[in-house]
Amino acid sequence: MRMMWEVLVVMLLAIFGKASGGAGGGSSGQMRPCPRGCNDGAGAMDDGVMSYCLSWRVGVETNNVRGWRTVPLQCMSCVENYMVGGQYEREVDMVMEQISTYLSGIVLSDDGMDAWIFDIDDTCLSNLIYYSNKKRFGCDPYDPISFKKWALKGESPAVPAVLKLFRKLVWSGFKVFLLTGRDEATLSQATLDNLHNQGYFGYERLIMRGEAYKGQSAVVFKSEIRKEIEGEGYKIWGNVGDQWSDLLGDSSGDRTFKIPNPMYFVP
Amino acid sequence: MRMMWEVLVVMLLAIFGKASGGAGGGSSGQMRPCPRGCNDGAGAMDDGVMSYCLSWRVGVETNNVRGWRTVPLQCMSCVENYMVGGQYEREVDMVMEQISTYLSGIVLSDDGMDAWIFDIDDTCLSNLIYYSNKKRFGCDPYDPISFKKWALKGESPAVPAVLKLFRKLVWSGFKVFLLTGRDEATLSQATLDNLHNQGYFGYERLIMRGEAYKGQSAVVFKSEIRKEIEGEGYKIWGNVGDQWSDLLGDSSGDRTFKIPNPMYFVP
Repeated sequence: MRMMWEVLVVMLLAIFGKASGGAGGGSSGQMRPCPRGCNDGAGAMDDGVMSYCLSWRVGVETNNVRGWRTVPLQCMSCVENYMVGGQYEREVDMVMEQISTYLSGIVLSDDGMDAWIFDIDDTCLSNLIYYSNKKRFGCDPYDPISFKKWALKGESPAVPAVLKLFRKLVWSGFKVFLLTGRDEATLSQATLDNLHNQGYFGYERLIMRGEAYKGQSAVVFKSEIRKEIEGEGYKIWGNVGDQWSDLLGDSSGDRTFKIPNPMYFVP
Repeated sequence: MRMMWEVLVVMLLAIFGKASGGAGGGSSGQMRPCPRGCNDGAGAMDDGVMSYCLSWRVGVETNNVRGWRTVPLQCMSCVENYMVGGQYEREVDMVMEQISTYLSGIVLSDDGMDAWIFDIDDTCLSNLIYYSNKKRFGCDPYDPISFKKWALKGESPAVPAVLKLFRKLVWSGFKVFLLTGRDEATLSQATLDNLHNQGYFGYERLIMRGEAYKGQSAVVFKSEIRKEIEGEGYKIWGNVGDQWSDLLGDSSGDRTFKIPNPMYFVP
């Protein structure tokens, strides 16, 4: 009887040891959840889907995937995990590290004509709240009326790392231009207020899309504005945006830096 | 006695059930290994390192991270997993899907002057064998003597998806130009042979870096060649390469397509 109990206790200890070790690998014997990212191991997602969605996201970021209206539906969780799970911030930090390295090699001139350009939406200001609540992280198509309603609230928070860069540039003596495709006629005040309430002040100029530029693609509009800025004598050292249409075209700047954005595409 | 045995049997069954279910989530009760990619759950890698390495890789692909000599050492496993674990192929497939969509909208002219450009190294031909055996997937810096020794063997296999695209373009009537920074004087025959033994024939022209272009950056060299090609009357519809220096500059083509390559950077 006593021996049976001892055998029982030893067996139970051995089996509980196995059960808490878990099934499968890892040097600690514990299976870690997969790290944050487009193929975040949220548990139930198929490997093939996650691999596809990471490829899609990288394709968007490299400008291989263009002209898309919506995020593929099977990638919604992937994009959500990416945007809210920490990988987005990590990738924005990587951009900022590169900018820092670039800045350390720049000697500003005495003429006050050293310029830097920022896009606004999802570069300076984040629309993640809107895209998560109203647009299923980009799985629903752009709706100008709905977006305007959101923008008029002026509640887009700053992208923290970009605000930090902005302040560093202004403090260093760069003339910072904020260049946006937002409609000047309807969103001027709301945009100004939003920028200011998030800490964006001290920029040289806020340039919005006026009547003359309506209907043009962002590349054409922004190229023309940048050419005008250069025409005034400014040297555009850097240009930061979340869309390739912020960064391509003429007078794009000595260096361009793409902020990640898997939620929408602006042609 | 009998009751004790019954209790023991029931407990053992319950505990073995838990043990084979494993520790933690998943709808099947099984913890899947993390999917292939830069943050592949190889088991022992730190989440922070994997997240950093995915950011680094995306930074390289977006041309935010430039001028780097080697892959960060902590990212070696990440790059290895990416290149050999399937995610690289998935991302190349994504590029090919985008090219297919683009091609379906092209109507070739009757004049036989519709052109397409490919880079060679790690676009048409893969140097993964060399980079894995000799260069720790890019953690060791470029060594022209060692690379030349490899290239002279002419053993680089085709990148299968790119070969398939190449054949489709030639069959469709495009004039395909293979444009490489490889040195014409020393690698001409080996490159020709390697291309042919991998199935690359029927191209219009193979253009290598001749004496006149020595010392120039790849962007300058390739821009000049593409301008000459356009000067002959060709229309460059597409341009495919694994380096941003294949795709930037003048006459870059109506569409450019970046093949992933986290192993090295060509300025």
